[in-house]
Amino acid sequence: MSTEERVREAAVALFAERGFHGTGIRDLAQAAGLSSATLYHYMGTKEDLLAAIMRASLTALIAAAEQITGDPRERLIALVRMHVQAHAEKPRETLVVDGEMRALTGERRAEIVALRDRYEQFWQDAISEGIKARQLTVAEPNVARLALLEMCSGVSRWYSPAGPVKLSDLTMQYAGMALGMLGAAR
Amino acid sequence: MSTEERVREAAVALFAERGFHGTGIRDLAQAAGLSSATLYHYMGTKEDLLAAIMRASLTALIAAAEQITGDPRERLIALVRMHVQAHAEKPRETLVVDGEMRALTGERRAEIVALRDRYEQFWQDAISEGIKARQLTVAEPNVARLALLEMCSGVSRWYSPAGPVKLSDLTMQYAGMALGMLGAAR
Repeated sequence: MSTEERVREAAVALFAERGFHGTGIRDLAQAAGLSSATLYHYMGTKEDLLAAIMRASLTALIAAAEQITGDPRERLIALVRMHVQAHAEKPRETLVVDGEMRALTGERRAEIVALRDRYEQFWQDAISEGIKARQLTVAEPNVARLALLEMCSGVSRWYSPAGPVKLSDLTMQYAGMALGMLGAAR
Repeated sequence: MSTEERVREAAVALFAERGFHGTGIRDLAQAAGLSSATLYHYMGTKEDLLAAIMRASLTALIAAAEQITGDPRERLIALVRMHVQAHAEKPRETLVVDGEMRALTGERRAEIVALRDRYEQFWQDAISEGIKARQLTVAEPNVARLALLEMCSGVSRWYSPAGPVKLSDLTMQYAGMALGMLGAAR
């Protein structure tokens, strides 16, 4: 593992466990086995590190969403399954992305918010086009998108691979619930 | 406002903004206009204060859930509307309750987890009885309960009373989406 990877991993663990503001630069350096000065050399400030974690996670989600094709209903199913799987497999990264946006400031915040908006646009398009194509019936597409994303992201707060539900079953169940909540024709 | 209320309010604001681990006892004392010793006298440790916030919030949700009667479908609609309204009206309290459970330890954690479980039982009962009564069709009631609660609690992360959606419309939309995701007969 490279030094950057080691620092990134330590930061994900600490930010997820104690929050961004609850994690000191010394905690990060210690967890990565570096001095604070060396850590700064590799990763910049604590906020740079947070932005790097979020950028990596959102860029991966966008890349996965770009691969998804089909009619609106099919795209929605694929988006839900992909998003739930990512949140179940990387609960700490996704908790940090979903929970620490408020900790970013200035240009970094603008950049990460733009990435998040770009990712959510795939969902918005699938929902809006699904309504136009009469595959979905939902009064407020914006509210539905936010509700659906919160439902799917919540997996990172409770899912355990050691529990009784297999991940492939979980992603199918979420796709079914998503279609139901968006009023998909059965 | 009593001193206790002032401290509680300052703690809710700081825990919601900076997280439990990101908030120092001195930040709390300063925000409430007290010395650290006086703060301790009134509220005990920082963890006591966190547990008090969570206890108040969960106890209010349980009291509201206990008032709800009717058939399973009706109870589910009422639970969703009540929960969404509480999360829209008190976003900071509910963010702290939903996000900082991991910060509690020992007996306090056991007490608060038991309150949360007691509250979630109302949801579990409505879903299970709805399935038995053939009002709902959902394969995994436990997964459905968790997904539904995450969807409804997520309101505290995005809803703004200054935005375009009225709260009474929001709670109705959530009730409709909840019935859809649980496969309610239309």
